[in-house]
Amino acid sequence: MQLSETRLSERHRSTLDQALEAIRTRAHWSPHPEHPKAYGESAPADGLAAFEALRGSRFELGQPGTDGWAGGEISPYGPELGIEYPHADPDVLLPAMRAGTGAWREAGPELRALVCAEILARIGARTHEFAHAVMHTSGQAFMMAFQAGGPHAQDRGLEAVAYALAEQTRTPSGAVDWSKPQGKRDPLELRKTFTAAGRGISLLIGCNTFPTWNGYPGLFASLATGNPVLVKPHPRAVLPLALTVRVAREVLAEAGFDPNLVALAAEHPGEGIAKTLAVRPEIRIIDYTGSTAFGDWLETHARQAQVYTEKAGVNTVVIDSTDDYRGMLSNLAFSLSLYSGQMCTTPQNLLISRGGITTDAGPKSYDEVVTDLAAAVSGLLGDDARANALLGALVNPDVKRRLADAAGLGEVALPSREITNPDFPDAVVRTPVIVKLDGSKPDAEAAFLSECFGPVSFAVSVDSTADGVELLRRTIRDRGAMTVGAYTTSPEVERAIEEVCLEESAQLSLNLTGGVYVNQTAAFSDFHGSGGNPAANAALCDGAFVAHRFRVVEVRRQA
Amino acid sequence: MQLSETRLSERHRSTLDQALEAIRTRAHWSPHPEHPKAYGESAPADGLAAFEALRGSRFELGQPGTDGWAGGEISPYGPELGIEYPHADPDVLLPAMRAGTGAWREAGPELRALVCAEILARIGARTHEFAHAVMHTSGQAFMMAFQAGGPHAQDRGLEAVAYALAEQTRTPSGAVDWSKPQGKRDPLELRKTFTAAGRGISLLIGCNTFPTWNGYPGLFASLATGNPVLVKPHPRAVLPLALTVRVAREVLAEAGFDPNLVALAAEHPGEGIAKTLAVRPEIRIIDYTGSTAFGDWLETHARQAQVYTEKAGVNTVVIDSTDDYRGMLSNLAFSLSLYSGQMCTTPQNLLISRGGITTDAGPKSYDEVVTDLAAAVSGLLGDDARANALLGALVNPDVKRRLADAAGLGEVALPSREITNPDFPDAVVRTPVIVKLDGSKPDAEAAFLSECFGPVSFAVSVDSTADGVELLRRTIRDRGAMTVGAYTTSPEVERAIEEVCLEESAQLSLNLTGGVYVNQTAAFSDFHGSGGNPAANAALCDGAFVAHRFRVVEVRRQA
Repeated sequence: MQLSETRLSERHRSTLDQALEAIRTRAHWSPHPEHPKAYGESAPADGLAAFEALRGSRFELGQPGTDGWAGGEISPYGPELGIEYPHADPDVLLPAMRAGTGAWREAGPELRALVCAEILARIGARTHEFAHAVMHTSGQAFMMAFQAGGPHAQDRGLEAVAYALAEQTRTPSGAVDWSKPQGKRDPLELRKTFTAAGRGISLLIGCNTFPTWNGYPGLFASLATGNPVLVKPHPRAVLPLALTVRVAREVLAEAGFDPNLVALAAEHPGEGIAKTLAVRPEIRIIDYTGSTAFGDWLETHARQAQVYTEKAGVNTVVIDSTDDYRGMLSNLAFSLSLYSGQMCTTPQNLLISRGGITTDAGPKSYDEVVTDLAAAVSGLLGDDARANALLGALVNPDVKRRLADAAGLGEVALPSREITNPDFPDAVVRTPVIVKLDGSKPDAEAAFLSECFGPVSFAVSVDSTADGVELLRRTIRDRGAMTVGAYTTSPEVERAIEEVCLEESAQLSLNLTGGVYVNQTAAFSDFHGSGGNPAANAALCDGAFVAHRFRVVEVRRQA
Repeated sequence: MQLSETRLSERHRSTLDQALEAIRTRAHWSPHPEHPKAYGESAPADGLAAFEALRGSRFELGQPGTDGWAGGEISPYGPELGIEYPHADPDVLLPAMRAGTGAWREAGPELRALVCAEILARIGARTHEFAHAVMHTSGQAFMMAFQAGGPHAQDRGLEAVAYALAEQTRTPSGAVDWSKPQGKRDPLELRKTFTAAGRGISLLIGCNTFPTWNGYPGLFASLATGNPVLVKPHPRAVLPLALTVRVAREVLAEAGFDPNLVALAAEHPGEGIAKTLAVRPEIRIIDYTGSTAFGDWLETHARQAQVYTEKAGVNTVVIDSTDDYRGMLSNLAFSLSLYSGQMCTTPQNLLISRGGITTDAGPKSYDEVVTDLAAAVSGLLGDDARANALLGALVNPDVKRRLADAAGLGEVALPSREITNPDFPDAVVRTPVIVKLDGSKPDAEAAFLSECFGPVSFAVSVDSTADGVELLRRTIRDRGAMTVGAYTTSPEVERAIEEVCLEESAQLSLNLTGGVYVNQTAAFSDFHGSGGNPAANAALCDGAFVAHRFRVVEVRRQA
């Protein structure tokens, strides 16, 4: 064994301890630097070179059951990646993935956590390479791909490892001598052992926009709890997860485990293997991020598995009043613009009283608020270089179509603008559209109560803030929400909104006017989603996210 | 507020601390005495009088929406109970149950746990009364009804409260100041609060055989995590849970909470309200113990709820070899006899090698083992008084029918015997039947691979222990198992059986020859079921059983 437990422990035990402490205190913590410069002078060039070297090649993984090659990623920035990935015969690959389960279980929670930490550390060391892979599959701008696809994703992975470790060690790992007094007679005595045992193969169904950030929590939660993990990336975003699988296989092998505990399932165009894999009896856990339709399908049909889904939702910001009007506008403008609104956490509906709002800059009518917000977005994105760095590219033609259609839904307060990316002339870069809708009109409601994923937001006029709060409740209950935002200086309104979020289970950001945005969460401190409304049945990350990925098997022996 | 938090804390905080410690160490612990005498000199007479006073009366609860009265329990020992319970209009009761949710959430995890502990303590003080209620609904013999329906059920309830408390306090309850350094710029700062918020109304669908033992974990897990609980007892076993609801309502009111946080839903004969209630949108959690058919129905249809089910299974004991033949036989004889085998944990299939087994009393052929086991059961139940005290009564006519049919499935090694209960001449009391079946015959397999709930066990001949181990694997995987037992002196066989239990997720008892039986588990130390095979999707009790009954709602405020 090249990577001994002692060596892994020296490298990562203190990081795990800090992670365990962080999820308990929820204070700021991260072992993964956000600044590209923190990775060394040659890292940017090395990362780019490593990414370029992957292009136009076969991505070998040495997996059993490889029966062909599949690929076809085209960067949202234009270039074809030209990478082919192994296509698997599940009848061969799945049994091979199970072969190493026994040894992985026997390793125990601590060693599994250390191995996972090593995988994350090696991914971390290659963050520049991953950044290019994420950028050219998701369309995120480089800096966002670097941060969200790199350190933030690694944070979420490590957070899941910490939760898994904590959960599995709630029951003692050594033998327990149990003795029950029987009055004058001898006590009843048993020797008991408790083993955390994985459920079976875990299937990760990756998404297009955040392949690593949305993929790592499930991947590492399952692996750390003793399950092999089959990674089925989105066909447009294979590379970041293929790199992840390669690193995981290397580390597993070096640590003396079967590399097939982590494997990739790439697919031919239109093959739709997620549906076939999801109902295989070997698959006992599924993590999925994507459309509500397929999420619902998984929950209905993959009954042999624990299914964790993040689906569509409609995120709302209630704008009641503020004591920092400029701060509010600039904060919202950034939230709407970041990655062209292609985040599951981007606000969609801005609920504003028809009668206007009160602010530190005097009362503002509904029209003024919308106009000022449009101006704030225009100002933020006025410079094309800055706009490109914030917006990234549209991830796929569906987003472009929705953006075009949105302008027909109502009065356009801010039209979308085409921007040219000088480095990537084929990139489709668009600024957000803001459309005014009347919250009391049923046809408007049909529009704003559906998720319109992409750079589209609706300035919805409501009769009053109280009316808006009820609309907020209905939106969360019926459509789900990953995030809720609100601006108010009124304690009563604040309490009413908080009450709705507590009752309908949504995460609330209040009066954000600085450098934290409603669409961003920090691992170890913030929960991503609540797991209690239709947008997602799990939160990243909590006890519930890991507790059912393994079972504790007890053996009682006559003492 | 008559019951202040201070007073509740004085009474129960140390008990909760001990419970939290016990679930961590898994050592023997219980605050609930098992001996009837521990409850005071007058307790037996008082308990009986209290039970008798309930008979032939209306069981008033003062619930909103009571639109009639329902009842009709007949003791398995013969007498009609003649008690009428409130029948509820869910359109009135369910909204009323939600009214107190906000205050119950605001109380916080600690106060909720203390209130739950007070409810359990008051139930504990009335254990003699509950014992008669359990006896005359389940058919358990008095001592078993006393222990399993009293202290052991209270243990399981308190265990769930402890898990709920631990789970909800993993995230800080006070405000957290989060500060993220930004190099030379000011740090990003937020103030964050985290609130454990229940999901909504929890529905407990009670069972006939262990109304309190199987009911308390879900009831207290849900209540302690902030959810109102609607208790829908089995129509034949209403009283123990109606008493529980009454105590809970009293304590809630005294502690200043809405008593409607716990309510009863009794039903008219054949009304089947579980189906109607289970799919109501207000119902967000369901706990169910009973048939696989209805458990599957709930999992398929009550998609708006978290559904925790304990269904049918086929429990197996592999008999390979033993160094205490007499101990093994007497231990098994007791396991098969206790409560006429009407436990979800009673062994059904005894797998014995066709070629016989090795023992400390020399080699024993398959026939000898079966004959000796039959003799051990006959010996144990030879005295009618002792038999009555062990067997109790058959809970319902279905069990009687299955017992009669079982004799036709194969060669009867031990016929069932009718026993008269001198105190209750109408009680249907039967000793267990043991039927020999050939494990290699498909028609025999059809019989022994179905759950035959009641005093029926099958001595299944297998080609070898290895063959038996594979049959064990198939049984757990396809039919589920709440318990697995094994007798072996071979380390290899032990390892093979352990491996199957780890891979298929089943709880294993090895070489039990003393006063602990495979069908008994101790709260705070043993897990009841694994939650990882078809017999149950949850274990009593672990983190997974409580973690998804609430969600943590975070509010982030600009600092």
